[in-house]
Amino acid sequence: MIKLTTFGESHGVAVGGVMEGCPSGLKIDRKFIADELARRATGKTSSESQRRESDEVEFLSGLLDDVTLGTPIAFLVRNTDARPEDYEALKNTFRPSHADYTYQAKYGIRDWRGGGRASARTMLPYVVAGAIAKQILKQQGIEIHAEVKSIGGETEPAKIEALLMKCRSAGDSVGGIVHGSITGLPAGLGEPLDDKFQACLAKAIFTIPAVKGFEYGDGFAMASMKGSEANDQMVMNDDGSVKFLSNHSGGIQGGITNGEEVFFHVAFKPIPTIGHGNRHDVCALPRAVVIVEAMAALVIARSL
Amino acid sequence: MIKLTTFGESHGVAVGGVMEGCPSGLKIDRKFIADELARRATGKTSSESQRRESDEVEFLSGLLDDVTLGTPIAFLVRNTDARPEDYEALKNTFRPSHADYTYQAKYGIRDWRGGGRASARTMLPYVVAGAIAKQILKQQGIEIHAEVKSIGGETEPAKIEALLMKCRSAGDSVGGIVHGSITGLPAGLGEPLDDKFQACLAKAIFTIPAVKGFEYGDGFAMASMKGSEANDQMVMNDDGSVKFLSNHSGGIQGGITNGEEVFFHVAFKPIPTIGHGNRHDVCALPRAVVIVEAMAALVIARSL
Amino acid sequence: MIKLTTFGESHGVAVGGVMEGCPSGLKIDRKFIADELARRATGKTSSESQRRESDEVEFLSGLLDDVTLGTPIAFLVRNTDARPEDYEALKNTFRPSHADYTYQAKYGIRDWRGGGRASARTMLPYVVAGAIAKQILKQQGIEIHAEVKSIGGETEPAKIEALLMKCRSAGDSVGGIVHGSITGLPAGLGEPLDDKFQACLAKAIFTIPAVKGFEYGDGFAMASMKGSEANDQMVMNDDGSVKFLSNHSGGIQGGITNGEEVFFHVAFKPIPTIGHGNRHDVCALPRAVVIVEAMAALVIARSL
Amino acid sequence: MIKLTTFGESHGVAVGGVMEGCPSGLKIDRKFIADELARRATGKTSSESQRRESDEVEFLSGLLDDVTLGTPIAFLVRNTDARPEDYEALKNTFRPSHADYTYQAKYGIRDWRGGGRASARTMLPYVVAGAIAKQILKQQGIEIHAEVKSIGGETEPAKIEALLMKCRSAGDSVGGIVHGSITGLPAGLGEPLDDKFQACLAKAIFTIPAVKGFEYGDGFAMASMKGSEANDQMVMNDDGSVKFLSNHSGGIQGGITNGEEVFFHVAFKPIPTIGHGNRHDVCALPRAVVIVEAMAALVIARSL
Repeated sequence: MIKLTTFGESHGVAVGGVMEGCPSGLKIDRKFIADELARRATGKTSSESQRRESDEVEFLSGLLDDVTLGTPIAFLVRNTDARPEDYEALKNTFRPSHADYTYQAKYGIRDWRGGGRASARTMLPYVVAGAIAKQILKQQGIEIHAEVKSIGGETEPAKIEALLMKCRSAGDSVGGIVHGSITGLPAGLGEPLDDKFQACLAKAIFTIPAVKGFEYGDGFAMASMKGSEANDQMVMNDDGSVKFLSNHSGGIQGGITNGEEVFFHVAFKPIPTIGHGNRHDVCALPRAVVIVEAMAALVIARSL
Repeated sequence: MIKLTTFGESHGVAVGGVMEGCPSGLKIDRKFIADELARRATGKTSSESQRRESDEVEFLSGLLDDVTLGTPIAFLVRNTDARPEDYEALKNTFRPSHADYTYQAKYGIRDWRGGGRASARTMLPYVVAGAIAKQILKQQGIEIHAEVKSIGGETEPAKIEALLMKCRSAGDSVGGIVHGSITGLPAGLGEPLDDKFQACLAKAIFTIPAVKGFEYGDGFAMASMKGSEANDQMVMNDDGSVKFLSNHSGGIQGGITNGEEVFFHVAFKPIPTIGHGNRHDVCALPRAVVIVEAMAALVIARSL
Repeated sequence: MIKLTTFGESHGVAVGGVMEGCPSGLKIDRKFIADELARRATGKTSSESQRRESDEVEFLSGLLDDVTLGTPIAFLVRNTDARPEDYEALKNTFRPSHADYTYQAKYGIRDWRGGGRASARTMLPYVVAGAIAKQILKQQGIEIHAEVKSIGGETEPAKIEALLMKCRSAGDSVGGIVHGSITGLPAGLGEPLDDKFQACLAKAIFTIPAVKGFEYGDGFAMASMKGSEANDQMVMNDDGSVKFLSNHSGGIQGGITNGEEVFFHVAFKPIPTIGHGNRHDVCALPRAVVIVEAMAALVIARSL
Repeated sequence: MIKLTTFGESHGVAVGGVMEGCPSGLKIDRKFIADELARRATGKTSSESQRRESDEVEFLSGLLDDVTLGTPIAFLVRNTDARPEDYEALKNTFRPSHADYTYQAKYGIRDWRGGGRASARTMLPYVVAGAIAKQILKQQGIEIHAEVKSIGGETEPAKIEALLMKCRSAGDSVGGIVHGSITGLPAGLGEPLDDKFQACLAKAIFTIPAVKGFEYGDGFAMASMKGSEANDQMVMNDDGSVKFLSNHSGGIQGGITNGEEVFFHVAFKPIPTIGHGNRHDVCALPRAVVIVEAMAALVIARSL
């Protein structure tokens, strides 16, 4: 079974991970992994951080000529942009809505040089492992796609762009919603209770910094629906297979996939770092999309 | 560490569980456990199911004179109302938006006598273990409270009651939202990444049948907020402690509790069983409230 | 993956277990389970305990008409012979080489009515689950056999019988060695490091009360061997398969099975309860054989 | 709870590990870690391998100024002596009593450049983590010591040295037995059944390559003992504490430590690589001693 152990503080030596349980004989697509890291590093919109990160992955184990051996795949990405001096001032203060205070409370010590393990940079190993997981899933016809659904309540690109510019000039940040979709899933993934498909997916998604809400299928809207509206009728095809006439359920029933599209929404709060010029992002979402996909890919790869 | 293993089909011999890791020396409050089971069995409103369930817990191990030994606490509740003949007609059909089809797809066999492991009755062992967990938490000053926030979009009791009556006479069902609150938590619970407090809570909540969404703190509303609105400022008290001026975060930062109230919302879809007279509930929420509390209690007890 | 959670004190209400991950569609052979329990209850030799135990298994979940549903299989065996008054005298004393003192040290409380979780009776749920695991393994051509190799250093039946009689009349007990054998295993089971086949087997075997040593293949004897003596040469057959010319390794190399017989020895200390007439066994081994087999069966079923 | 994930093939880029659950605020003693690595690299006797390994640990995370942050501690040791050409001849052959064949059977692929994950070099990360664990244990007064008890059946240093020389000139190898001792353990460590102290210790020890047997306390010798000989009598001191009059049990009863010394023996088979001149060791034991200690340290640190 696929298992990922990650490590690394944002301004330490490196971040990385150890991916266990990956099937042997898979040719790793390094170009694809680099592309996924680029999606994480830059996002898509011009309002993104100017901070350059050259995220080069070094694989330490588990591969022979880029083919998986079935043994643990360890990898790291060195932190090249660590400038602890920028953070020196933070040594004795707690930034609001950051994890500075809670880390101090939990450990009695924290890596004040940056966000430590609370930084979004800790998502990088998930993106690398998620890229490998996507390769495994693709072989089985499973595709994952996430995209920005809304930012600050706006859904139209032009309005979003205007809002981001406004936030940037004000030194402010803004939240948003990501839409995720998984197609090609076989029926039968997930467990009846303690590892329901949606529960594992929710847990993985809530691992992402700044996530405040998760819903799947028609989600919160179903709280206002009647059973007669919400139920997904199905018909038996002549060949004994089943055809669903709607998908309010979002592809999962009783914790187990039914073969329909699994779709979900993820709510992100605004980035808490504000008033700091252009070193930080105005909005996490463009860069978060690939992280959402990676988390979903890892959950599915584990449940196969 | 507290761990719960559950078992049982809704129309099998019994449902039950094995609770491991419970501290030794705790006097179990059987009356409280029975009260919690009554909350699950009947809910609070008159529109609830007329089906009588006398849920008597039998403890099989882990106790000596009702005091915990530190060894696994096993318990069961026999299913006294199993009438498989009521379900005979379902043997060869898949009920819409139930787990009949997905169980068949996963296992090639299913317990057609009722909902099997997908029935809400499988929540009963969580309620028992949750009641024990609540006792442990209470000793440490931690309290959990959940309540119905809205049903079918209505928040006023009178309107809710009218809606439920209407649904009942129409043979229909309706969804709703539960509000949950945890107070008295120390700062420092939860882990930086793979076991964030909110991620564990979300996973546990999504184990409950019919749950379609989960948010904590200001949740989905934060997707439309600016950082300047969403951040929780804090001040240092003279004694070195910290005082938060707001709680948009919902008591968690970086996956770790900060000592403030943790609050969250849970969206339930309408019960999929409709058009069957009064044997089934019109709305899951009144009976679900105690389940939400139990799930939260187990998550917290595990993280202590 | 197959997982077993057990519960129960020897003189409590019941012992039992929850077996998760059992494949669906398996017809449970209740007669075989009863036979295995009888092996545990009586052993084979006349010197065994006269204490009667009618160990009737009640299955609580996971079965429909004795066919596995794929959901957790819970079962219990009630303790019918519990006579706490026999143990009243033990309430305030620690029996030598029992777990009375260590339980007290760990939990601050113990079930003085008998051995609690340290009693050999706690092995009963492993025997039940092991019997189910054996059924699964048999379908795949895997057979497990354990037998008494020596008792008190004696290997000949007549000498063993004489020794047991002597011990019995002296109110003493005696240890021994069990030989275990697993045949029909495919090559490739086990993991390179943290879950080596032999490591998982050793862990399971050391779960049995009174076990003091475990060796596999030529075991401790290999500590006195040279590489030239100990190595298992192999030849390639014409069809590309491999034939091993010896099996000092005991069917495992690098933590992974090689398709040869896995064999091992288990050393049991003498039962610590002595000087108590005929209520207790003189020697654990005849009854332990089926437990050794059950433990091995569960390890293999998990690794398949 | 302390958890170690390791990675690395012997002739790949690096070996290393991620140690989770280490308490925060511990100053890492780098000199001690280097010393432990030197013990693994060279052993103590002159007959050891001439192969030089400069095992320099690079820490990647979890530390700030060498003080643990409570977050995962990742580290690696690069493989500087990798000469795959030496192994080119092994690409298409299976060495006897190595894991070449079983890896091929399991994964359909293997790292033919050396022993891959089956090499003793994979123990290096355990030594690093074990050194950290030892620091934690030392603070609590717990000490671990292992030493060679016998090699090839010989226990006297002079005879051992002669035997090793003879083996070396014959291009042969030889097995042996390591004696391990743990002192300063509190009573109460370990679990009643599935995680008995000795079972966890056995599992960890069997993770070491070439280990064929494990016994604790009087071990296999107890199979020939009577209960009246084997039982450890105890007396109550005036202050209510307990004094054991013997320690046949080896410091564990019912899976739980009793506060006495835990001692054990580990049987190693001869190194299977023979007839290769002086590149390889004649005997694994001198270098294995520190590995045995590391494994024990990790088990104890986990159970605290």
